[in-house]
Amino acid sequence: MSETDRRFMALALSLASRGLGNVWPNPAVGCVIVNEGRIVGRGWTQPGGRPHAERRALDQAGGAARGATAYVSLEPCAHTGHTPPCAAGLIEAGVSRVVSAFEDPDPRVAGKGHAMLRAAGVTVDVGVMEAEARALQAGFLSRLRGRPWVALKLATSFDGRIALANGESQWITSAPARARVHALRARFDAVLVGGGTARADDPLLTVRNFRPLRQPARIVASTRLDLPRGRLAASVGEAPLWLLHGPEAAAEARDWWRGTGAETVALPVEDGGIAVAAAMEALAARGLTRVFCEGGGAFAAALMRAGVVDELIGFTAGAVLGGDARASLGPLGLTQLAQAPRYNLHDVQVIGGDVLHRWRRQTQA
Amino acid sequence: MSETDRRFMALALSLASRGLGNVWPNPAVGCVIVNEGRIVGRGWTQPGGRPHAERRALDQAGGAARGATAYVSLEPCAHTGHTPPCAAGLIEAGVSRVVSAFEDPDPRVAGKGHAMLRAAGVTVDVGVMEAEARALQAGFLSRLRGRPWVALKLATSFDGRIALANGESQWITSAPARARVHALRARFDAVLVGGGTARADDPLLTVRNFRPLRQPARIVASTRLDLPRGRLAASVGEAPLWLLHGPEAAAEARDWWRGTGAETVALPVEDGGIAVAAAMEALAARGLTRVFCEGGGAFAAALMRAGVVDELIGFTAGAVLGGDARASLGPLGLTQLAQAPRYNLHDVQVIGGDVLHRWRRQTQA
Repeated sequence: MSETDRRFMALALSLASRGLGNVWPNPAVGCVIVNEGRIVGRGWTQPGGRPHAERRALDQAGGAARGATAYVSLEPCAHTGHTPPCAAGLIEAGVSRVVSAFEDPDPRVAGKGHAMLRAAGVTVDVGVMEAEARALQAGFLSRLRGRPWVALKLATSFDGRIALANGESQWITSAPARARVHALRARFDAVLVGGGTARADDPLLTVRNFRPLRQPARIVASTRLDLPRGRLAASVGEAPLWLLHGPEAAAEARDWWRGTGAETVALPVEDGGIAVAAAMEALAARGLTRVFCEGGGAFAAALMRAGVVDELIGFTAGAVLGGDARASLGPLGLTQLAQAPRYNLHDVQVIGGDVLHRWRRQTQA
Repeated sequence: MSETDRRFMALALSLASRGLGNVWPNPAVGCVIVNEGRIVGRGWTQPGGRPHAERRALDQAGGAARGATAYVSLEPCAHTGHTPPCAAGLIEAGVSRVVSAFEDPDPRVAGKGHAMLRAAGVTVDVGVMEAEARALQAGFLSRLRGRPWVALKLATSFDGRIALANGESQWITSAPARARVHALRARFDAVLVGGGTARADDPLLTVRNFRPLRQPARIVASTRLDLPRGRLAASVGEAPLWLLHGPEAAAEARDWWRGTGAETVALPVEDGGIAVAAAMEALAARGLTRVFCEGGGAFAAALMRAGVVDELIGFTAGAVLGGDARASLGPLGLTQLAQAPRYNLHDVQVIGGDVLHRWRRQTQA
């Protein structure tokens, strides 16, 4: 693997990341086509999942793809879906070498793309910037294993509080930090909150401040579907609304919400809330790869207890609220520190005078 | 003010900072003597407060001080204490120009140093990097106004907890972060904790891992002096121990602690704890300029309520402990967010995989 290969793969990864949040259930892929050191085509998975990155890059390259090297952040597909497979497209365009970050574990691909290319005489090098590419595709990879990648966001005071005892929470963090939350939402397939937060705030949960390529699905977990029939309901035309409920939800409530255009998903109940594992399975089955959870404390604790939180996103502000203010997280019932879930620091930024810190789970596949 | 002036003053400030924690009750001053563009002397206030920075720099410069410019991070002293005043020393050495960051508000100086220099024909320029110099001298300036600068440190999990419900807290943050706490202690004149922390942990509160120039004073605020008679007591020879107690402390306890070599300070009680304002006044009267408070939650909340916390120092680790774990701060009784104390972000660093974030009070003199 040459430095040149790494450089072009880094560009492919950067293009790939543009698709995050917009391309589910597909992976967000990037492709760069290079002919004699010159970039002749760049592409990334388009909103909704197609066209694929390779198709876009090949269209841009045209005849210049002949004899060129294609850098792809994931193995090109080999199965005919709505479009012919990308491996066939690369062969047809006369690409002479393909550099791929890693083999797509999707059973419909799983090495067949690389094999198809090699069978056609194309040189194939696999494994350039594999770790970085896997990290970028963590949601897609997690979904193949049965549940979406889950990020939990907590925006708190210096002492870890999300609201005063009386519920006042507007605002603890700065306006730029709150704007960043909207930008983060847009990089995820869905925004998820517990029923408590929905009842307290009746939040819109949409991406605002700018127009995203695709509004994330909005998901509320509410055992009884006893949600305020206000802003969430009125905005179904703006962004999808999925309601996860338990068996005890009243038929009236289910029907009313369906009438607004919301989708309802019946799930088992566990420890007084929606069963987390079943919920995650249902979300993966619906195609979600990346889910952004914004609380509240009880629901976030249920996710933590179920061990499904892959990423922590903290915003820490310089306000101090005190121990009588509301905690960011419900009880976990730990009796030893060794049981505490541990995360590795991934990124720190200063935004509008607040600290944004992102962490990833220590033990992840 | 030329760029050259700023450059040498920045060096003087950097030298000055070496004295923080070692020079109380004196200010930590830095001095650079420059002759025809060449640095001929550098000095900073020595442990215990003398010799002063100017004296050290002049001794180093020797005859090269003649006709030179002296950069000092604070107005040179004009009063004869244990040593002749620095202003006289500069004149005697033949320094032709003095660049000073700001006028020393200490009533024994208060412009007299600058005036003495000018009267002797020395050119005096005041105000170079004044804001930076005042920030560095925040403790000294605060003491002149009647109380030390107080930094409150909280080392917490991602969700703002300092221990499990059962008290287990070893360890939430990383070893490098804990080592940094010792380095921080060494930059303060004293380490301060509440009685609850002393009863729970019987902490040493000394600077370990390396040998500081001066061990900070260790201060415990305990209304009743009902402290464990263990490690704190046994280490009085290593570092001073001051015990702030209320009128209800038993004479036996007071005598016992005095017998160990600890100093006891009788103070009024307020809201069930040592009266914070009176305590701060007593510490300033004893010469402290910079105090590092390490909790616990109840005592830290009392400091917050009294409005004496100038700086927040947070260590955030990637562990998640849950809402049933111990809060970092006791109740503040806020009923509106507008009442919440606000701090401005001053510095963010990553240490051993934890995030260190430092904040300074928004409204400060």
